[in-house]
Amino acid sequence: MSAYEKLRKRLKQLYVLDGVLAQLSWDASVMMPKGSVEDRGEQIGYLSSLYHKMLVSEKTEELLNDSEAELANSPNNWDKVNLALIRHELIHAKAVPADLVSKIAKESHKCEVKWRKARKNSDFKYIQPKLKSLLNLVKEQAQYKAEALGVSPYQALLDMYDRGRKIEDIDSEFEKLKNFLPTFISKVKAKQNPKGSIAWDYSLKAQKALGKHFMRTLGFDMNKGRLDKSTHPFCGGKGDDIRITTRYNKRDFLYALYGIIHETGHAVYEQNLPKIHKYDFVGHSNGMSIHESQSLFMEKQMARNPAFIEHLHGILHEFFPNIPQYTAQQLQDYILHVEPSFIRVDADEVTYPCHVIARYELEKAMISGELEVADLPTAFNEKVEKLLGIKPKKDSDGCLQDIHWFSGAFGYFPTYTLGAMTAAQIMNKIRETVKVDKALRDGDFLAVTRWNVLNIHSHGSLYNSSKLLEVTTGEKLNSDYFIEHLENRYLKN
Amino acid sequence: MSAYEKLRKRLKQLYVLDGVLAQLSWDASVMMPKGSVEDRGEQIGYLSSLYHKMLVSEKTEELLNDSEAELANSPNNWDKVNLALIRHELIHAKAVPADLVSKIAKESHKCEVKWRKARKNSDFKYIQPKLKSLLNLVKEQAQYKAEALGVSPYQALLDMYDRGRKIEDIDSEFEKLKNFLPTFISKVKAKQNPKGSIAWDYSLKAQKALGKHFMRTLGFDMNKGRLDKSTHPFCGGKGDDIRITTRYNKRDFLYALYGIIHETGHAVYEQNLPKIHKYDFVGHSNGMSIHESQSLFMEKQMARNPAFIEHLHGILHEFFPNIPQYTAQQLQDYILHVEPSFIRVDADEVTYPCHVIARYELEKAMISGELEVADLPTAFNEKVEKLLGIKPKKDSDGCLQDIHWFSGAFGYFPTYTLGAMTAAQIMNKIRETVKVDKALRDGDFLAVTRWNVLNIHSHGSLYNSSKLLEVTTGEKLNSDYFIEHLENRYLKN
Repeated sequence: MSAYEKLRKRLKQLYVLDGVLAQLSWDASVMMPKGSVEDRGEQIGYLSSLYHKMLVSEKTEELLNDSEAELANSPNNWDKVNLALIRHELIHAKAVPADLVSKIAKESHKCEVKWRKARKNSDFKYIQPKLKSLLNLVKEQAQYKAEALGVSPYQALLDMYDRGRKIEDIDSEFEKLKNFLPTFISKVKAKQNPKGSIAWDYSLKAQKALGKHFMRTLGFDMNKGRLDKSTHPFCGGKGDDIRITTRYNKRDFLYALYGIIHETGHAVYEQNLPKIHKYDFVGHSNGMSIHESQSLFMEKQMARNPAFIEHLHGILHEFFPNIPQYTAQQLQDYILHVEPSFIRVDADEVTYPCHVIARYELEKAMISGELEVADLPTAFNEKVEKLLGIKPKKDSDGCLQDIHWFSGAFGYFPTYTLGAMTAAQIMNKIRETVKVDKALRDGDFLAVTRWNVLNIHSHGSLYNSSKLLEVTTGEKLNSDYFIEHLENRYLKN
Repeated sequence: MSAYEKLRKRLKQLYVLDGVLAQLSWDASVMMPKGSVEDRGEQIGYLSSLYHKMLVSEKTEELLNDSEAELANSPNNWDKVNLALIRHELIHAKAVPADLVSKIAKESHKCEVKWRKARKNSDFKYIQPKLKSLLNLVKEQAQYKAEALGVSPYQALLDMYDRGRKIEDIDSEFEKLKNFLPTFISKVKAKQNPKGSIAWDYSLKAQKALGKHFMRTLGFDMNKGRLDKSTHPFCGGKGDDIRITTRYNKRDFLYALYGIIHETGHAVYEQNLPKIHKYDFVGHSNGMSIHESQSLFMEKQMARNPAFIEHLHGILHEFFPNIPQYTAQQLQDYILHVEPSFIRVDADEVTYPCHVIARYELEKAMISGELEVADLPTAFNEKVEKLLGIKPKKDSDGCLQDIHWFSGAFGYFPTYTLGAMTAAQIMNKIRETVKVDKALRDGDFLAVTRWNVLNIHSHGSLYNSSKLLEVTTGEKLNSDYFIEHLENRYLKN
């Protein structure tokens, strides 16, 4: 057996462990009784450390060294990229001293627990010291990774979520959005119809049936996944077992439905990764911006397209007999309503990037040391006011609303809007060959998603997210497509 | 840190792995999409081999040797028994060569898969060669274990499920039952009322609510467990996460309810094991006969007691308004009806031991070589006819009905009836201090189960099953109590 085959066999065990960890996390969010939180914590902690140990072991490095020599002249690019990805993962994993890793894990957990109380009471002072000490640890971690990767600290953190994505590229694309959005939002608000109401008692059973209908028609393989309920919707699992969740609102079926469609985007991506590289790093899903592009492609590009809404309106009575009469236009007015608001996760497609840009700029400043934790609430509220024209009156509507920073995740936020921009660029490409609006009106969704399967999913991690977009759309990430998309959908209709 | 502390810390990892394996198995039976069978197989296979490797590692043995020396003069019996149990487990694990273990795992799996088809078509010939080769491997395994333990091969297999239980003791107690049951069954059949019917459309939601009501009142901690549906009811999980399942019959609510009560017996046992020894072998549940005694105690001793049935009858209308009128006596006639039948899992309390004794005698003969696989169907049908007075007309009603042998489990069957006998002996002891019938009629179940918690659950694996019964009831296992119980319930009422 060649060194490379031995290495692949060894890393297959990581894949298996990852699948187990995914299952344990899914269960913890969906099924687990409350009283077993500690037991589950021990299980996840133990298997995570096993994963880490196996990854950074001498044996792995030795096999990797030998494989690199073995494949130096190989023409097989997939294998070479696979080795590069393993090397990249090893650099990340070994850059940070073990005791710092475990300190961050412990402090994140503690900070997260306290944050729930702080958010509930809108009490930033309560969490401030904890966030400060956690940020200091994250900065230390960023410094170590920066040295190992030869990049800046924030760039190193970003690399954990979106490999190879450059700060400069984000800055320039976000700048275009910052110039565009405030005026655009005002124009949309002036032009749009009132939101209206679709409130009714939508049975949860029918809501679930409707959700499953769209999962299936959007390409979800029900034989290799599930739909369940959880407090926060997510897509979890691995390989042949991909599970999504949603939450239900009796008075508004769209609340669950759009959650389901979003997670279906993530899930269909996972379900269509290249099977022959199932156990290889190169066969896994790309970073978070590509993952988010796939969920947003389905949720925003497809499911908020007026043609899709028309299709949805046409089949609603099959699931909810006797619902009040509202026209497709009224449903569209309700779904596409734009209104600046404080909570990111509830924001519409147009105002959402403002939330993300604010956080991106703030977290960069926190990592660089320009922004002190003590000054975060004020800085947060000022950014939001500047971008959205409204100012949070309490910190639970401001810097306390998201879990990310309080669980040690810095560098994640930009991937949401990078995903939205990527999705718009992909849709623009698809329109070159597919009559998208007609397909959506007819419910022929695979005609649209097929491009993603062939061009995004099937590539796994062969390229980083920037390169992938360039290879498959012929152009670097360009926010003009997203801007054009917003203009078409919200001003020209 | 002492060698013993190091050993305990190391074995805690086995506990954690065991919990993960339990979770993966539960999910596979209750939640998992069909298409991920292979992925799950890889996960369970990998973690099982990790468990085995860690148990039989040199490091474990070294720490065990050192701990035994360290604790040689310790007055702490729990610790000493803990070491003895680890040693015992190691002897079992190391007795059989690794390649035989993996051969058995593979052959069991294959045989089990084929058995499903054989049972469906009632085609013994189809499975005969597979069962023969599996039996040969099991005999080899039994021989290795017999040598390591210094006992006979069947005794060695028995020891895997019920540590220290002696064949002679089973033989003598089963002999008493064999002499008693055939005549007794005739007498009961002559005396009993007709079974009658309780058929109605019992809503599944109400059935579940009723089941949960009894889980709670019988002592199940809902904060540390769940109730779900599965094809075959079971109790799974570990530590603070104990999950039971049942299946529902729309026309007969007792089908699900008695399944739930049975599994609640297993679950309450697991939930009340000694917390301070949670991670130690000595703190785990005893063998299968004690486990089964706890489920049968709730299902048979408590829930089929006429006083319990009266209580159940009294609260039924709270869960099923407008059910047809039947009296408590009619409900009792239905629940306690005795009738020899072919399928073990559907058998009543009186005829059940006949099914077990037949299988026990047959598997002993197969392991000793007295009975050839080719002769099993005939031998099986003859045994059943002799004990139950009815003869299976097809092998799916005979030797093909149970999965045990076809998955390589020989030595398991007797624990069902050992459990029933143990439960009867425990109830006899409890009656010395508790007004059992009054408590059951009043729904005050903890007054009855408290004895089990204090005397059985809290002892973990401190004693083997024989010794435990002797210590807590003052007497060795004695089937007279079971016989007396049957006479009181089925002839004297």
